[in-house]
Amino acid sequence: MICGLPGSAFVGKFGLDHLVSDLPALPLAEIYADGFPPQMMIKDDGTATLLRTELYYWKSPEGNNDAILLTGDAQPSGSEAEHVLAEYLIDYGLENYKISRLVTLGAYVTGTRSNEPRVFATGTHHEIIMLLEKAGCVLMRDGGITGMNGLLLGMAKVKGVEGYSLLGETSGYSFDPRASEIVLESLSRLAGITTDLKKLRQKGNDALETLKKIEQLSGEQSSEAEPQTGRKRLDYIS
Amino acid sequence: MICGLPGSAFVGKFGLDHLVSDLPALPLAEIYADGFPPQMMIKDDGTATLLRTELYYWKSPEGNNDAILLTGDAQPSGSEAEHVLAEYLIDYGLENYKISRLVTLGAYVTGTRSNEPRVFATGTHHEIIMLLEKAGCVLMRDGGITGMNGLLLGMAKVKGVEGYSLLGETSGYSFDPRASEIVLESLSRLAGITTDLKKLRQKGNDALETLKKIEQLSGEQSSEAEPQTGRKRLDYIS
Amino acid sequence: MICGLPGSAFVGKFGLDHLVSDLPALPLAEIYADGFPPQMMIKDDGTATLLRTELYYWKSPEGNNDAILLTGDAQPSGSEAEHVLAEYLIDYGLENYKISRLVTLGAYVTGTRSNEPRVFATGTHHEIIMLLEKAGCVLMRDGGITGMNGLLLGMAKVKGVEGYSLLGETSGYSFDPRASEIVLESLSRLAGITTDLKKLRQKGNDALETLKKIEQLSGEQSSEAEPQTGRKRLDYIS
Amino acid sequence: MICGLPGSAFVGKFGLDHLVSDLPALPLAEIYADGFPPQMMIKDDGTATLLRTELYYWKSPEGNNDAILLTGDAQPSGSEAEHVLAEYLIDYGLENYKISRLVTLGAYVTGTRSNEPRVFATGTHHEIIMLLEKAGCVLMRDGGITGMNGLLLGMAKVKGVEGYSLLGETSGYSFDPRASEIVLESLSRLAGITTDLKKLRQKGNDALETLKKIEQLSGEQSSEAEPQTGRKRLDYIS
Repeated sequence: MICGLPGSAFVGKFGLDHLVSDLPALPLAEIYADGFPPQMMIKDDGTATLLRTELYYWKSPEGNNDAILLTGDAQPSGSEAEHVLAEYLIDYGLENYKISRLVTLGAYVTGTRSNEPRVFATGTHHEIIMLLEKAGCVLMRDGGITGMNGLLLGMAKVKGVEGYSLLGETSGYSFDPRASEIVLESLSRLAGITTDLKKLRQKGNDALETLKKIEQLSGEQSSEAEPQTGRKRLDYIS
Repeated sequence: MICGLPGSAFVGKFGLDHLVSDLPALPLAEIYADGFPPQMMIKDDGTATLLRTELYYWKSPEGNNDAILLTGDAQPSGSEAEHVLAEYLIDYGLENYKISRLVTLGAYVTGTRSNEPRVFATGTHHEIIMLLEKAGCVLMRDGGITGMNGLLLGMAKVKGVEGYSLLGETSGYSFDPRASEIVLESLSRLAGITTDLKKLRQKGNDALETLKKIEQLSGEQSSEAEPQTGRKRLDYIS
Repeated sequence: MICGLPGSAFVGKFGLDHLVSDLPALPLAEIYADGFPPQMMIKDDGTATLLRTELYYWKSPEGNNDAILLTGDAQPSGSEAEHVLAEYLIDYGLENYKISRLVTLGAYVTGTRSNEPRVFATGTHHEIIMLLEKAGCVLMRDGGITGMNGLLLGMAKVKGVEGYSLLGETSGYSFDPRASEIVLESLSRLAGITTDLKKLRQKGNDALETLKKIEQLSGEQSSEAEPQTGRKRLDYIS
Repeated sequence: MICGLPGSAFVGKFGLDHLVSDLPALPLAEIYADGFPPQMMIKDDGTATLLRTELYYWKSPEGNNDAILLTGDAQPSGSEAEHVLAEYLIDYGLENYKISRLVTLGAYVTGTRSNEPRVFATGTHHEIIMLLEKAGCVLMRDGGITGMNGLLLGMAKVKGVEGYSLLGETSGYSFDPRASEIVLESLSRLAGITTDLKKLRQKGNDALETLKKIEQLSGEQSSEAEPQTGRKRLDYIS
């Protein structure tokens, strides 16, 4: 099970969306939770849906490495809501698909731009730690991982599933597709799941381009009567 | 099922109260929830009641278009309380009355006064979107709808009920009966439920008049010993 | 069932403590709730107990007017915790003692000192309102009652129990035994439960005296090493 | 059952960790709760685990004084989560080990440094209070004990288990191993559980030394790109 939810710099979510579309993976389930922010999200075709977690299934061509991809519109708010959803998702994977390993992708926020961003990592067991080190990740030695990235991996461990977290170094100031890219590179080395990263880079650059235009537009429009519609926004930001 | 709860500019609540009294619709149920603000509301006859959600039933004369009207004193606070109530209300409508469509009425707050306010809209399915467009609504293409307006429609979709949200453009600064009126005009075009909008306008103007007097009065009274009683307030504001 | 919990100016709690000791009433039950602030309260004999709600039973000498007295150390925090406790207490009274009327005592905070404080009131039904008016209470005509005073009365109404709230006018700035006194006077007129109000006045004055000393003491002690012990505090304030 | 959770100045947690390692006590159970902060804690071997409560068992050599030691990574947040965990832990001890006495160790924060710190105490029953006084503790006469220290003892009392709280006087400004030491001295006098306090002092001094170095280091590093890794932190602080 590979997880990437919206969070700092959209590192995990952007990575997961790429995996879903590039592998490609098929829709498996939608999960709604009382702990999500009470909100409907409007798509650009005009229709709207409650915030939700989405699961996809990827059948590996070799047949020995299938994956469930987990992403979604938001993280629940409140520690109890986060625990309840994390436990539900791990149980779902275990009971229906006997998942044996869990990976979460996210951001390692430093506040400073780095020219050579690194992938930080932690894992549930000593053997995993050695794999992470071999794959060139920087091992974390203290601190913690908060939110669903921490809870999903921690809950997996409690339920007997091993796993690891890959966190792409990022300043955290804005959407950072480069951090998603290096995290997917590590994932490829560790899990043998390879995708076309050129496509990811292209999508990332397009999105950054759009974001820049929106910022200019929103500067110009600030005195108009229509501050929230008629404007194109990035899915990842709205 | 047509829903309008207290919210910005009382657009939905004022509209629903008009539907209830003008159609007229009959009391069906009162729903109390732990998630409501812990408060009793005092009526002008001196009696008090817990905050609650109210359901009314309208039997259509043509017999093919009955409606449940949903309004109330407040929205619950906290995302879990909102989800629980929204799910309960949709289940109630489905199990007891097999509702097939859900409409929520609310406000589209812009922060600026508009001389020609518009009705913004979103829906659960593509076919609905086309109806909304034909009825002259402005389709939303991004962003979200928060609170019970979003949750009721989103929960309806999850449970297989189609529907839409009609949001009257308003500055949001104060009670705005004009926004309720245009929303009811759209509802009439879309659902064939027509009421006497002159009466609504009259009630709205009376209420605005009363509000203005209260503001003057409250300015004069500000140094007196009795700041909260002996004063007439609008139901919609208290 | 007569209720007075800690709140503004300790109007209800001080009144209930007087009723319990002066009638006198016998201990009936202690109720602990997850929603109370997570805290133990230390008594002046050095022992400590969790915050709790206390019920007492008063057997009326005439045998036709028994009462359950409800007081406690605190109000729960959070609207759901308040709803759950209020419902539990009403159900407890109904199932075990078939209570037929509920009274809550509290404060009507004005922010200004009044030489002739009044008792404000609201009730569940029109007949009650007329009794309140006859007893010289000022009827509230709008606004609301928040917290357990509102919830207990409102929940009683939902469960078919009639009742009323008596709120003693107070500036709200500090402990106000005079407000408790006038509320108990109204209660006596309305429910025929009469106690020795001279004793209440005496206790109130003693408490105000002690409070004054504490304030002086705490001014002097502010630079010492022992800011929280070895000092006598009023039960009602700690 | 002897409890010490992370809190002010790490008085209780540092004391418990010493008891666990010096008696020594054996691992008994790990308890995970939805109310813990949603976070994984990373150890210095690179592996990570959800925050949890840990129970250890100490078999007394004399066979008449076994103890369950309770410590953990954090206290739950939110009063309901705290109540739920406290009740669970007391029930666990009662049902599985028929615990007959509960002790909680914590801090008595004064805001000023004291050369001769005292142990403040409160207990569930009058007989306990007399023992505490004989052991040289300063009895608390008012105020309250908040958080898990208060809840565990209060919940024990509600379930019929007697007990006491020992609170070491501390300024509360930083990690204070001296406060842990005096609390363990009192515990030894009261419960006959004696450990090597020289070792505790040594560990405390080492920790304070490390803390000082970290502070200097963190001052120097403040302009570097790597503000959160590659740095050694005290377990008790991270």
